[in-house]
Amino acid sequence: MNTSFFSEMLQSIADRSRALILRERREPSHERSAGIIELCEDLLSGRGEASGVALANEILAEYADLTIGPRIAFFEALANTFGHDRPRIDEAVAAWRADPSAKVAAELQRAAEPRRLELLRRLNLAPGGTAALVRMREQLLDAVNRRDDLRLVDGDFVHLFSSWFNRGFLVLRRIDWSTPALILEKIIRYEAVHAIRGWDDLRRRIEPEDRRLFAFFHPQMVDDPLIFVEVALTDYVPDAIEPLLAEGRTPCPPERATTAVFYSISNCQKGLRGVSFGNFLIKHVVEELKRELPKLTRDPLRVRWLL
Amino acid sequence: MNTSFFSEMLQSIADRSRALILRERREPSHERSAGIIELCEDLLSGRGEASGVALANEILAEYADLTIGPRIAFFEALANTFGHDRPRIDEAVAAWRADPSAKVAAELQRAAEPRRLELLRRLNLAPGGTAALVRMREQLLDAVNRRDDLRLVDGDFVHLFSSWFNRGFLVLRRIDWSTPALILEKIIRYEAVHAIRGWDDLRRRIEPEDRRLFAFFHPQMVDDPLIFVEVALTDYVPDAIEPLLAEGRTPCPPERATTAVFYSISNCQKGLRGVSFGNFLIKHVVEELKRELPKLTRDPLRVRWLL
Amino acid sequence: MNTSFFSEMLQSIADRSRALILRERREPSHERSAGIIELCEDLLSGRGEASGVALANEILAEYADLTIGPRIAFFEALANTFGHDRPRIDEAVAAWRADPSAKVAAELQRAAEPRRLELLRRLNLAPGGTAALVRMREQLLDAVNRRDDLRLVDGDFVHLFSSWFNRGFLVLRRIDWSTPALILEKIIRYEAVHAIRGWDDLRRRIEPEDRRLFAFFHPQMVDDPLIFVEVALTDYVPDAIEPLLAEGRTPCPPERATTAVFYSISNCQKGLRGVSFGNFLIKHVVEELKRELPKLTRDPLRVRWLL
Amino acid sequence: MNTSFFSEMLQSIADRSRALILRERREPSHERSAGIIELCEDLLSGRGEASGVALANEILAEYADLTIGPRIAFFEALANTFGHDRPRIDEAVAAWRADPSAKVAAELQRAAEPRRLELLRRLNLAPGGTAALVRMREQLLDAVNRRDDLRLVDGDFVHLFSSWFNRGFLVLRRIDWSTPALILEKIIRYEAVHAIRGWDDLRRRIEPEDRRLFAFFHPQMVDDPLIFVEVALTDYVPDAIEPLLAEGRTPCPPERATTAVFYSISNCQKGLRGVSFGNFLIKHVVEELKRELPKLTRDPLRVRWLL
Repeated sequence: MNTSFFSEMLQSIADRSRALILRERREPSHERSAGIIELCEDLLSGRGEASGVALANEILAEYADLTIGPRIAFFEALANTFGHDRPRIDEAVAAWRADPSAKVAAELQRAAEPRRLELLRRLNLAPGGTAALVRMREQLLDAVNRRDDLRLVDGDFVHLFSSWFNRGFLVLRRIDWSTPALILEKIIRYEAVHAIRGWDDLRRRIEPEDRRLFAFFHPQMVDDPLIFVEVALTDYVPDAIEPLLAEGRTPCPPERATTAVFYSISNCQKGLRGVSFGNFLIKHVVEELKRELPKLTRDPLRVRWLL
Repeated sequence: MNTSFFSEMLQSIADRSRALILRERREPSHERSAGIIELCEDLLSGRGEASGVALANEILAEYADLTIGPRIAFFEALANTFGHDRPRIDEAVAAWRADPSAKVAAELQRAAEPRRLELLRRLNLAPGGTAALVRMREQLLDAVNRRDDLRLVDGDFVHLFSSWFNRGFLVLRRIDWSTPALILEKIIRYEAVHAIRGWDDLRRRIEPEDRRLFAFFHPQMVDDPLIFVEVALTDYVPDAIEPLLAEGRTPCPPERATTAVFYSISNCQKGLRGVSFGNFLIKHVVEELKRELPKLTRDPLRVRWLL
Repeated sequence: MNTSFFSEMLQSIADRSRALILRERREPSHERSAGIIELCEDLLSGRGEASGVALANEILAEYADLTIGPRIAFFEALANTFGHDRPRIDEAVAAWRADPSAKVAAELQRAAEPRRLELLRRLNLAPGGTAALVRMREQLLDAVNRRDDLRLVDGDFVHLFSSWFNRGFLVLRRIDWSTPALILEKIIRYEAVHAIRGWDDLRRRIEPEDRRLFAFFHPQMVDDPLIFVEVALTDYVPDAIEPLLAEGRTPCPPERATTAVFYSISNCQKGLRGVSFGNFLIKHVVEELKRELPKLTRDPLRVRWLL
Repeated sequence: MNTSFFSEMLQSIADRSRALILRERREPSHERSAGIIELCEDLLSGRGEASGVALANEILAEYADLTIGPRIAFFEALANTFGHDRPRIDEAVAAWRADPSAKVAAELQRAAEPRRLELLRRLNLAPGGTAALVRMREQLLDAVNRRDDLRLVDGDFVHLFSSWFNRGFLVLRRIDWSTPALILEKIIRYEAVHAIRGWDDLRRRIEPEDRRLFAFFHPQMVDDPLIFVEVALTDYVPDAIEPLLAEGRTPCPPERATTAVFYSISNCQKGLRGVSFGNFLIKHVVEELKRELPKLTRDPLRVRWLL
């Protein structure tokens, strides 16, 4: 099956994710007369789809320039200005009490939705919007401690991210020595269990024939992994991690491997905390290893954790 | 920028979308003891993510085999069995009346959500799940007339599709004579304004240098366009469509073109009715044409509709 | 292994092959004062590599505009003006008679080489040069009958093509319903054994799961196949071709297939006559089928010809 | 133009080039009864194309295992056993003296060709054959000093490589931070003018917006560059290299650049010595830069060398 048409098609997503940053530089914030809150109101009220993209773009660029104080103020606006619509809820609650039907339940649900949910959905229209919103939530997490109002905002981020990062959209990729350097560089930075000490150390973990590193990616954030796991194939059951990472060791030919040691797993996006990918990644990797090393399907692959 | 790593990464989505059909054939429905409703309950209650994928897969395969009667019964179950949770709503309503706070509004929203929303989200985990759900809604639309209960179900499909087919995920692609035949075949079939009479007619609309056909695709349905528009570049403002489609006409060199005639636009997915892409597509195509033919930016591109 | 960097790298070859035709149109042959022969002398004497590319380009564009008479005259110039260098050969022959050493043999070989060999090598520098030279030889073949002088020129084309179309450079590709239409259109046109009557007939030969069509391509002519073979997978040994091509037949699931019927093979490039790819293609296809259908490796694949 | 079909097509070349090494390991040299010379004679006499591939493969694997002594002996066999055919030359020389015609000149040329030329052409059929022959010539160069017989062999390598590495086959690629690490690693190793001290230093030369690194590749050696050049874009004419390579400098926005400083050029393949790519690469890069930065076409790009 010639799937290249489709992959080329999808490539433009990658190109778009990078467009935002470029645009920021080209359109300096001269004459940004309207404040970010007004812009958000415009975006919410707007009909025009395409001007919506431009607005979303501008809001995210403005946001990126905010210092801590105004950023907290923006989060507070998300909590309050773009919160729930009390009169509308009151009305729907009254309707429910008169007629507790499916139709009124549906209206009740719509009425109770905070306005920020739709605002965040529209911000997602900007090129690179998803990645920008993940970064936004990362900063929200820093501010959220002991602030119940912001915690509700955070819950809405999690709700949206759970839908956008639906596991059906995740893409498993093996990372090896032929992977672009800009991805490898992030692997080095994100490794959270056994620190990777530079390029030579990374190479020892991805180039030998008995080593595997798999990552999940999302179509909207194609040059930034979501989570990755590191695996060593061995022909014995090891009980320490050091020999597996030692320099100068002799690789085990994969066809002789009986055990897959999962020795590290790292979440990459702090802004996606609470949207869990780990179990799903491991299931996928186990299936991938079984496909690659079919002998292991009969003599079942022993998976061992050594963190 | 070498974006090929990213595009190859995304290619696996294409591969997965085709997996469902294959699987159906290989795993015939022998011993499907549990009914489709029970399977849905299992899916909703289930913890295990990976078995969730298998369950979602099985449910969609079962669904595809249903005849009209049981299919309507399944939709009714979506409406009733998987509808709203009345006691939970009552409780939240009572809480709201006591304390109309943001926190209680959030609980009210969650309480009012029908169970089928989460069910549909989980069905989307199956390979090719999104396309299968679009087909499911297509069949729901046939059944929905004069049935208010099913209309609510339909509203939930629209709600989910609006999020999944968020414009930020859409990919614009030019369709030309180097496009895979399986896509071209669908263009012929979907054309809704000026019927395409076979391959030669199609070729006259996409191969000459003064013709363009652009389509939107979605990463989860990569071999099936969502909507497409047909454009003729001309050096005059035409007032009839026939000369533009005539055989044997002389093409206008694109660098001489002053006018872009949009002479056809076709929605391809009946199951996505109500999720509109048209304005967004046209805006994109106009920008694309301006980029390709920069002369038109000074002397502004005249866009003319001739449907 | 992430090979996408490499494939993207090679893609530019495809882009370049199309550049020639475009250029021809943009630079009409006004003011071509120098004749094509003088241009060839310039190309041969020239030092500058890049101006060589421009010259080669210009010569091939001039050639493409020649009518039959001047074209024959050009071939005659290849035979005579750009033939062997008699004094240099005489000198080398004398040297050989005095000292029949390896060194003198090498000089003898160089001395005996006709000048047109180097001329053709330099013409190959133009974008799309290889394809243009294949077309040139196609026209030479029409002229070569009963003309011994032109037959020598033809022999030099074969010599060069044997090197440029070295089997190590050929690329096997399966042609199916996801192949670009511009390739499929050529398959229809080139089929030489059992004529393909339009797109529906083509589809019956490439889309069913028990049909295969494989073609060889060359990096310098990426949108034009060199040769292709059509295969039907069957679970019996057929003795007639008609049932295999019948409309409405039931496909044989590939995993049940015991026999691969090669029912058609077509050379596509008349200009490559004498450079044979057929045996090599068949060997490759047999290996490809064995890889895809591993069961056939034990119970050896029966290959049957039905032309 | 959707060129992805074509690029995917070419990708298999990349895959094949890696096959040789793998095969060597799997088929250890046990029971290699026939000597390498006999295998070469078999290859030359053989009819069967596909068994020729296997033979070529085996010969190159045998060769790779040779120690220095037997390797020199193999080169001597290329010089003598596979040298010219004296009786055939004598005959052709006699024919020439009787009839100095074009036809006899052609026969003379064929007669004077040493047998090793055809042998090397057939070795090139092996997967990865071209790269293996480039390595073979690298070792030949080490042996060739003061040995006139081997120098003739070397001349034949140059003759073949000039044809196979014809500039029409070369592919220009920009190397940047999204390039696979296995290519970047080779750039570090091959840099011959201003040594690259590790990954951070490399990054400073390819990631900033005012830096470019372009390389030529060949379809048969896709993961190994042939030659590359490093460029700095500046808005002044520098007279020293150090400030250009300094850490912590401020990049020049490309749209402001007036000068392209070519500060390093490195040949990568010792085995291709005498087949020059440098001028051609520079011409291409200059054109590429003009295309990317169109302002430079009016105010002509100043190219300055600072080696």
